[in-house]
Amino acid sequence: MSNEANNQVTDEDVFSGHEGGKLSVEVPRQIANQRDLSIAYTPGVAKVSRAIAAEPALAERYTWAHRVVAVVSDGSAVLGLGDIGASASLPVMEGKSALFRSFAGLNSIPLVLNTNDVDEIVETLVRLRPSFGAVNLEDISAPRCFELEERVIEALDCPVMHDDQHGTAIVVLAALRGALAVEGREMNQLRVVISGAGAAGVACARILRNAGVGEVTMLDSKGIIHPGRAGLNAIKEQLAAETNASGLRGGLEDALAGADVFIGLSGSTITEAELATMHSGAIVFALSNPDPEIHPEVAARYARVVATGRSDFPNQINNVLAFPGVFRGALDAGARKISDRMKLAAADAIFQVAAEDLHPERIVPSALDPRVAPAVSAAVEKAAHDESA
Amino acid sequence: MSNEANNQVTDEDVFSGHEGGKLSVEVPRQIANQRDLSIAYTPGVAKVSRAIAAEPALAERYTWAHRVVAVVSDGSAVLGLGDIGASASLPVMEGKSALFRSFAGLNSIPLVLNTNDVDEIVETLVRLRPSFGAVNLEDISAPRCFELEERVIEALDCPVMHDDQHGTAIVVLAALRGALAVEGREMNQLRVVISGAGAAGVACARILRNAGVGEVTMLDSKGIIHPGRAGLNAIKEQLAAETNASGLRGGLEDALAGADVFIGLSGSTITEAELATMHSGAIVFALSNPDPEIHPEVAARYARVVATGRSDFPNQINNVLAFPGVFRGALDAGARKISDRMKLAAADAIFQVAAEDLHPERIVPSALDPRVAPAVSAAVEKAAHDESA
Repeated sequence: MSNEANNQVTDEDVFSGHEGGKLSVEVPRQIANQRDLSIAYTPGVAKVSRAIAAEPALAERYTWAHRVVAVVSDGSAVLGLGDIGASASLPVMEGKSALFRSFAGLNSIPLVLNTNDVDEIVETLVRLRPSFGAVNLEDISAPRCFELEERVIEALDCPVMHDDQHGTAIVVLAALRGALAVEGREMNQLRVVISGAGAAGVACARILRNAGVGEVTMLDSKGIIHPGRAGLNAIKEQLAAETNASGLRGGLEDALAGADVFIGLSGSTITEAELATMHSGAIVFALSNPDPEIHPEVAARYARVVATGRSDFPNQINNVLAFPGVFRGALDAGARKISDRMKLAAADAIFQVAAEDLHPERIVPSALDPRVAPAVSAAVEKAAHDESA
Repeated sequence: MSNEANNQVTDEDVFSGHEGGKLSVEVPRQIANQRDLSIAYTPGVAKVSRAIAAEPALAERYTWAHRVVAVVSDGSAVLGLGDIGASASLPVMEGKSALFRSFAGLNSIPLVLNTNDVDEIVETLVRLRPSFGAVNLEDISAPRCFELEERVIEALDCPVMHDDQHGTAIVVLAALRGALAVEGREMNQLRVVISGAGAAGVACARILRNAGVGEVTMLDSKGIIHPGRAGLNAIKEQLAAETNASGLRGGLEDALAGADVFIGLSGSTITEAELATMHSGAIVFALSNPDPEIHPEVAARYARVVATGRSDFPNQINNVLAFPGVFRGALDAGARKISDRMKLAAADAIFQVAAEDLHPERIVPSALDPRVAPAVSAAVEKAAHDESA
């Protein structure tokens, strides 16, 4: 599709596209006569329930739950809109469920919760555990999201992932690999500056370190995160210990001077002058939406590769490249966790699809490239099997 | 369909009919290109979320939740199988969700809960409130089910119904009206014996009294429920006060002598000799499944009208005649509760469909009669509007 057609989307298109919601629950095997009813409902269903009661593992085979991804949110950090609450977040969660079906053939139901309390969210999911097979946590504010994800992973014996963290991180890593392949550079030579220590920033720092990036410098709204800075929370204390090996201090201009990569995840801005101080051949991912940290055409004056979160510029970093295939692969493998290794495998699979046709304006595949989800799913499934072997 | 074909359902038919579960979540408006993605997901969806945040009532129009029936169970009283737990109950709940789609065109999701605690179930549904538009409580054991339904109705501003209670009661009332029309008799002349003071029995007693039945005699496993009987729980104390105006005491034989109607909801049996003591032109609803309290062919020697819960005998009392239309009508009306008046209207609508072609072996419509759900829905919607007028 052309960018032109994209721009033609009107408010009316959007609202009429949401009329009545975006999902429906259907019955693949029709119930049209007494025989169908006797199989799907009474008396037949009693045999299936009795069989599962006797052998609980049969639930995986004879119910839908094992392949249902619950998209779970409390509506506390929705897109760029902030804490708009559960009900207002529902269109996003329905969209996510729609993408699970469209890209990975998975059943998915949105579950939005009228509570921001971590204990209560964990408890609710534990009670509902037999109703689903995986949990995609979505649009939950930092730093609660870190504790919440950890505790839900701990509490449930099924794949759980906070997509704002890891979906973004996987696609950022894939894009960075694409950019490095274009430039003929290596991960371990890089100093990467990440602006924003929220859900996505923290997960990006981790996956980049796991992928062998030389050095990561993180900034939050108060500047570079370094040990001993006053008022750091637990997550930032940890980041301070694990990043910024050079011991930089100060603000964005201090971080950017001589850096190789800028990843913007903060909703703030960077100036041309700051960009000009980066290492030659800089890579700029200005991912804030709807307004990138710097206009990509301006960034292109200084950077060799530029990416954004928007579909109307080249190199869109879009989570939809990752999450459908990640969950599909984890479920296909019967995995109980989504491990670091599975995330790295997902990033590699996205990169491999892009690598077939690499170009400074094509470091990641299109969000709609039908090759991506199957490739990610297969790679994640293989990583899960390798890990359990 | 013939009873013959019904009998041909094999275990293999049943299990293969459950392979992978019985539901799927689909996307009515396909997401096939960048424009679709921009409407259903980012950036378009942000406009819809912002609109709902500003005006919460818009959630009814632009999300699916308002028309989603959650089928909720803890698996504590599943069919005739007892307390088999949440996961083993799921095939039944999926079947119920499938029937909501098939008979009433409603979206429905099964939510099964790993807890039997009434407080916890209520709390869970309160937290999930923005995710659905109605609650069908299912297969929850008595007497917990009475308190639970009351508390969920109290806590949620949407239609809530425990189908094992009221779905059964509505269809029993409809069938009784059919039987009376066949016999040319009146509600207020009847003495009705209900064997079984569980979910269905209690609700039947109430709806029959609301419909003007002369006298109801209730029995539990210890015999006739009457004031002063030792060890009555709160529900049975209330039944003792509200039923059995003649002050009968003793067992089934004492209750049946001279009674007009027997309604079996207990899983126990009655003998030919007991049946023979009933009033001439007796009406027998032997509803236990899979084994009726008395074989319908034996009952027919003494009763003018006989009904069972089974599809392979005439006059099947099947909840599917009620619940799809009841919820559809309540949602179409925007009702916040399912009132007694709406339940009576539902029973009347079922009876009216049967009345077009009444016969001692056709006092209720077939479970698959496509006229029923729309008729019930329209009647319930009208009752809701009349009530709020």
